[in-house]
Amino acid sequence: MQHYFTNLKLSENEEFIISDDIAHHFLSVLRSKNGDKFEIVDQNHNLFVAEITNSDDKLAKTLKQRHNEVELPVDVTIVCGLPKKEKSEMIVQKATELGVNHIIFVSTDWSIAQWKNNKVDRKLNRLNKITRSAAEQSHRNRIPYVSYINSISELLNNNFDHKLIAYEESAKKGEHSDLIKSFKNTNEKDSVVCLFGPEGGISPAEVNKLVDNGYVTCGLGPRILRTETAPLYFLSSISTWFDLLKV
Amino acid sequence: MQHYFTNLKLSENEEFIISDDIAHHFLSVLRSKNGDKFEIVDQNHNLFVAEITNSDDKLAKTLKQRHNEVELPVDVTIVCGLPKKEKSEMIVQKATELGVNHIIFVSTDWSIAQWKNNKVDRKLNRLNKITRSAAEQSHRNRIPYVSYINSISELLNNNFDHKLIAYEESAKKGEHSDLIKSFKNTNEKDSVVCLFGPEGGISPAEVNKLVDNGYVTCGLGPRILRTETAPLYFLSSISTWFDLLKV
Repeated sequence: MQHYFTNLKLSENEEFIISDDIAHHFLSVLRSKNGDKFEIVDQNHNLFVAEITNSDDKLAKTLKQRHNEVELPVDVTIVCGLPKKEKSEMIVQKATELGVNHIIFVSTDWSIAQWKNNKVDRKLNRLNKITRSAAEQSHRNRIPYVSYINSISELLNNNFDHKLIAYEESAKKGEHSDLIKSFKNTNEKDSVVCLFGPEGGISPAEVNKLVDNGYVTCGLGPRILRTETAPLYFLSSISTWFDLLKV
Repeated sequence: MQHYFTNLKLSENEEFIISDDIAHHFLSVLRSKNGDKFEIVDQNHNLFVAEITNSDDKLAKTLKQRHNEVELPVDVTIVCGLPKKEKSEMIVQKATELGVNHIIFVSTDWSIAQWKNNKVDRKLNRLNKITRSAAEQSHRNRIPYVSYINSISELLNNNFDHKLIAYEESAKKGEHSDLIKSFKNTNEKDSVVCLFGPEGGISPAEVNKLVDNGYVTCGLGPRILRTETAPLYFLSSISTWFDLLKV
């Protein structure tokens, strides 16, 4: 069943006007008719099955609310040093499928890629469209949001319950339990952030600044992962721990 | 340090001729000189630090053997229904970073993509180059190999200790412990295979055939993953379990 998001607040058996985006996709592209059903998530992340009641007027009606548990039980933010080329698009698409709630791109000391100031808005706009589309496809109840900060110092204004740095040097030294230790100390609803360096890695100065502010370095297994693979490993690990193991 | 593979069998303090590929990359592209060091993995998956002794004659010499534990303690095969576009390239690159040993692409009942017979060799050639390059970059001791089979029936000729199907229907029904159950029953050195459907999914006939031959369906968490994301989740899960947790 198709899965869409709306900014409306909905309840069961409520008629509503579908947005132009949904109308375009569900009515024009997929040629759906009156009585055809779809899933819709409202502004409060509540999921309803709905059906088209009058396709000419773009009218639909919610039927039953569905209580599905598709979101990670922890609130995960990933912070990615600006990667090269289109890797940012790949990261946000896959991270959305894997359950992230917030993706922050950050310019770091050793970032080779740079986002020019006058292009940041356009890039974020595009990336936030990708998260919406990926959230629809993976049938999530939340659309992650993508933002941008100029430096790691700005990150220190944000509060998180658990703060991690995926650090290659930890992996090289054979460290392989700090991630699990952190998971063991994490409770449902806690917020977790993990930072990933760009292709060039994170500078020692940046690592020190983060560690001074409560961040903990951790390895992601013994193999060297590319900058765009590491966050996907991390999110899959979190899901393995909190969706599969803790049940 | 750069990391390369050779088909030679090496021991410590042994002079050898580097291959044209390595010479091109290490000497011509990176402009390395006599005395510059690199890592080289021999045909027995043994890793040595080596140094260039005579760049004109492409001569090098092994120094110390390094006993690094970078390979997954289990022998993992992934079988992927033919995906669309360049997704096969992304899968083999990322799966190599994540520790896979063998990647099999298979034409399934509902595969939209098809590999024409006269193009299979060229495609495999290209994909096997990608695994080599990704294995170098992630500093592995093994290069995974990529192969192709015409149907799921051919897969049944292969023996594995643990046989899984990543099955969306399991995920939708809220099943989320069969993967962990399988991990718990898996010992070091065991062989594990997991099959992933293409965009269209696996047909019920195929699932039945596999289940009749000892395959077990399992979910990969509550979110719907794309065909190219599911194997990366699976491999990250395996690494979390066998590299990080079981230590």
